[in-house]
Amino acid sequence: MTVRSFAERLSARMEETTSLVCVGLDPDLQRLPPHLTSRKNAAQAVIEFNRAIIEATVDTAAAYKLNLAFFEALGAEGWSVLQATLDIIPGAVPVVADGKRGDIGNSARFYAHACFDLLDFDACTVSGYMGRDSVAPFLDHPGRGVFLLARTSNPGGSDFQAVEYQGRPLYEHVVRTALAWGEPGNDGEKGSLGFVAGASDIEALRRIRALAPDSPLLIPGLGAQGGNSSDVLETIREGSGPVLVNSSRAILYASAGRDFDRAARQAAEALRTSLIPALS
Amino acid sequence: MTVRSFAERLSARMEETTSLVCVGLDPDLQRLPPHLTSRKNAAQAVIEFNRAIIEATVDTAAAYKLNLAFFEALGAEGWSVLQATLDIIPGAVPVVADGKRGDIGNSARFYAHACFDLLDFDACTVSGYMGRDSVAPFLDHPGRGVFLLARTSNPGGSDFQAVEYQGRPLYEHVVRTALAWGEPGNDGEKGSLGFVAGASDIEALRRIRALAPDSPLLIPGLGAQGGNSSDVLETIREGSGPVLVNSSRAILYASAGRDFDRAARQAAEALRTSLIPALS
Repeated sequence: MTVRSFAERLSARMEETTSLVCVGLDPDLQRLPPHLTSRKNAAQAVIEFNRAIIEATVDTAAAYKLNLAFFEALGAEGWSVLQATLDIIPGAVPVVADGKRGDIGNSARFYAHACFDLLDFDACTVSGYMGRDSVAPFLDHPGRGVFLLARTSNPGGSDFQAVEYQGRPLYEHVVRTALAWGEPGNDGEKGSLGFVAGASDIEALRRIRALAPDSPLLIPGLGAQGGNSSDVLETIREGSGPVLVNSSRAILYASAGRDFDRAARQAAEALRTSLIPALS
Repeated sequence: MTVRSFAERLSARMEETTSLVCVGLDPDLQRLPPHLTSRKNAAQAVIEFNRAIIEATVDTAAAYKLNLAFFEALGAEGWSVLQATLDIIPGAVPVVADGKRGDIGNSARFYAHACFDLLDFDACTVSGYMGRDSVAPFLDHPGRGVFLLARTSNPGGSDFQAVEYQGRPLYEHVVRTALAWGEPGNDGEKGSLGFVAGASDIEALRRIRALAPDSPLLIPGLGAQGGNSSDVLETIREGSGPVLVNSSRAILYASAGRDFDRAARQAAEALRTSLIPALS
């Protein structure tokens, strides 16, 4: 039996929803609406918040991304909140574990097991600083996806990712090298290999889209972190691989009142609409 | 009140134990002695294993390193096993969270909170691919330590860490850049900044020790991964910062029988003895 690839499933979902929107779930207790946090324990408040956000955005979101930092910060209950949140998201909607793990092969195998076998995420973000054997165990799961960090949208993203190696920025070397891991004659790629490329460095986004036009892309940093929408739309159209544009805080915290879910829906829907030209 | 730095606490512990040994706790259910796994549930078996290893090695170990991948792979019980393991280790013994986290500032803050505020680890490993704001939140904890990945000992470690930038390998640029973050005029360093430098690339280890002679170092990869002991000893002596030489599998799985704890103690003690010349 052939397993349908993550890239195919993601493309189908994007087509079905006419959406590139990835809703990033970064549940920060300090920013949750007061009426949720005042009466309940932290874990319950976060689950209720996530449920309301998911129910309000599920028909406008192509995918969800769960930022593991915010679940770890809940302590012993973090895992069950993560599990409860995953249970709320319908099975047909791809969900990305944003944990940026990266370790020697033997350890990476255990991270991949937790992510794909235990929690049943569809894809995850991976940091490749430790090289091939730190990424391979995540790609060893047919039907799942990896978004390898290439060029991130944060202020420090250029500290090392943009250093010049053989006339090219390092992130380009990372993308070229990782693509070669999946070539015939190498092990072959079992999961879908994609990349994280922020909207804040449009030149980097262009180069990465050109190098890997068929690969899934996860684009953070549109809007708040400074990315220009029309440049991003144009760049997305230059390739055929499925693209997720992530938005976390701008959707989750669009309102701190009792209307937070409606406000979140509006923000997600506005982003979806603005990105439709990229789908044509 | 001045908080005693992690580097100072680690140096004191090393002197007290005449040891550079860091016992790496990577509890792999498949490799635990059968008499522990046959009767108990996974979480109980791992706690019992960790307890026996810790009790057998605590007077020969300068520190412990808990590899978070192996605890995550235990699922919902992983956090309580982690907590129970930390409770077994006496408070005076430094414990490193080996999670290699690295994310944008806002997320990194949550990882650091989980690591230092909730779990009370003394130090952690951090991946710096995302640059300064991904590392700073971990250094924002006085009395704690960060081991930033510089040159790792795994086969893929050279894929990106060894690329040449301005005539120098990337790992050297990472070390130089990170050291500058803590200089006067910058934010200043609140936690202790150290580095991970594997024993398998002795040239890299030498360069890193020379660049940061006062910084804590975490050295994996001695023995099994090919590092030569006498070269490593010589390099350690070239600086004054506290050094941990990590060994995980060679200690934990020295025997699969009922004598696993005694075998672990022997392996740890043999490593400790072999490293004594580096302390002079």
